[in-house]
Amino acid sequence: MSFTYSRKINYYETDMMGVVHHSNYIRFLEEARCAWIESMGLPMREIEKRGFTIPVLEVNCKYKMHVTEGDILAIGINLTDYNGVRMTISYDVRDVKTGNVIIEAQTKHCFTNMDLKPINMKKFDEEINTKFEAAKLEK
Amino acid sequence: MSFTYSRKINYYETDMMGVVHHSNYIRFLEEARCAWIESMGLPMREIEKRGFTIPVLEVNCKYKMHVTEGDILAIGINLTDYNGVRMTISYDVRDVKTGNVIIEAQTKHCFTNMDLKPINMKKFDEEINTKFEAAKLEK
Amino acid sequence: MSFTYSRKINYYETDMMGVVHHSNYIRFLEEARCAWIESMGLPMREIEKRGFTIPVLEVNCKYKMHVTEGDILAIGINLTDYNGVRMTISYDVRDVKTGNVIIEAQTKHCFTNMDLKPINMKKFDEEINTKFEAAKLEK
Amino acid sequence: MSFTYSRKINYYETDMMGVVHHSNYIRFLEEARCAWIESMGLPMREIEKRGFTIPVLEVNCKYKMHVTEGDILAIGINLTDYNGVRMTISYDVRDVKTGNVIIEAQTKHCFTNMDLKPINMKKFDEEINTKFEAAKLEK
Repeated sequence: MSFTYSRKINYYETDMMGVVHHSNYIRFLEEARCAWIESMGLPMREIEKRGFTIPVLEVNCKYKMHVTEGDILAIGINLTDYNGVRMTISYDVRDVKTGNVIIEAQTKHCFTNMDLKPINMKKFDEEINTKFEAAKLEK
Repeated sequence: MSFTYSRKINYYETDMMGVVHHSNYIRFLEEARCAWIESMGLPMREIEKRGFTIPVLEVNCKYKMHVTEGDILAIGINLTDYNGVRMTISYDVRDVKTGNVIIEAQTKHCFTNMDLKPINMKKFDEEINTKFEAAKLEK
Repeated sequence: MSFTYSRKINYYETDMMGVVHHSNYIRFLEEARCAWIESMGLPMREIEKRGFTIPVLEVNCKYKMHVTEGDILAIGINLTDYNGVRMTISYDVRDVKTGNVIIEAQTKHCFTNMDLKPINMKKFDEEINTKFEAAKLEK
Repeated sequence: MSFTYSRKINYYETDMMGVVHHSNYIRFLEEARCAWIESMGLPMREIEKRGFTIPVLEVNCKYKMHVTEGDILAIGINLTDYNGVRMTISYDVRDVKTGNVIIEAQTKHCFTNMDLKPINMKKFDEEINTKFEAAKLEK
């Protein structure tokens, strides 16, 4: 696993079933993704300064077990595919206490300039391209 | 009451107590406020086209009773104060079925241009100023 | 299309990109699903009274275009699969004004009793089973 | 200041103004409050095991400045009033980087049993009462 992000569940993230509402996991994935990209030296602000952004094209999420307020999630990130134009990230989301898999998820992304036109990172920013290429190999 | 906005509570707006999470009422107030301003012929987009915005300076909210998924709120709006520079809105938030007051709330606002510099609506846009002046009298 | 649900985008559902945050669409799907099930005479409260619930097992969502504050979504629902134990729902989510497809989504569900043990609706509640069977045919 | 809680702003907590949506601060206050109570040896789960809960009766919030994605808030907590039946908490919310006050806020609470009937902590649980009495003096 190339990167792991941990976070505690807040009260307001639960619903009347007594567990985390399923939509909130999509937000936790984003948190983990931003922390991972920041760990490469690319906080979101730096990304926007460099003139590009990373939209979400697709989210796929399988709900396996529940967690609730006070539980801590460990979200492992793997860059499973990257070609300069698109990337696929896989997430391994576990309850820290039990080690149980809570959700299995995958997000797909492209890269665009600030006018939301697709770009090829290989041509747009070689330094960043190199970082993503390296991340793809860390498994 | 000058304007009433109704909306049903969604499942994802409840928390593990089985009722609406208290932070969500602040969002319902915004919905009601936007619907009210739109009812004056000023949808948010028109407001931004005219070059101003209406930030929230203060929120005060007293929680009286609970509602939950499937309940319907009626949010009455009163413009209790307006002087071109600032305005205070009071909200009467009731459960449609029982008529019970759920929260009592008040928000305070100013007007700014798109650089977030305060403006005086009396000088900035007379037409809009006239609408707010009229709304202040509707009680 | 067996059922269509419409709803306006709220200001607080946008993010700093100026458009709806991608996690919120998952909530809109839930709203549409609840409204659809209610249209069969089964509001969530009735469902819980009858002693079962309908967890989300999987969400798949492709983001095609953006909408923002004030836009109205029309969310069409199709019950694409149902066998008493599991069901798959497909969503057609369009911007009412332009007719553009905004997201393509699918959710998968099972049925459980209140102890979250899986049930077979064919045996558990024949009346409800009949309604879902009928919905599967409406296309 | 008796307790300080820090947290980073997430992308999904911003709105189309490019800053944190005002409703989200109410959630950050809850996070800080839960962390503070946990620091007294009372995680929410322990509280519910002991058979009581701490509803929000009132929220008052003044918005002074904005923060956005990637900024870090330091939320200081003061127990400004406590008498066994009710308590008032004041929050000092600052941008860690600039030291600027972002919001000034206050929440009021009571204590109830799990049937939501008010209780007097002095009689209900002397150990917890002693902790809150001590927290009131830490300034």
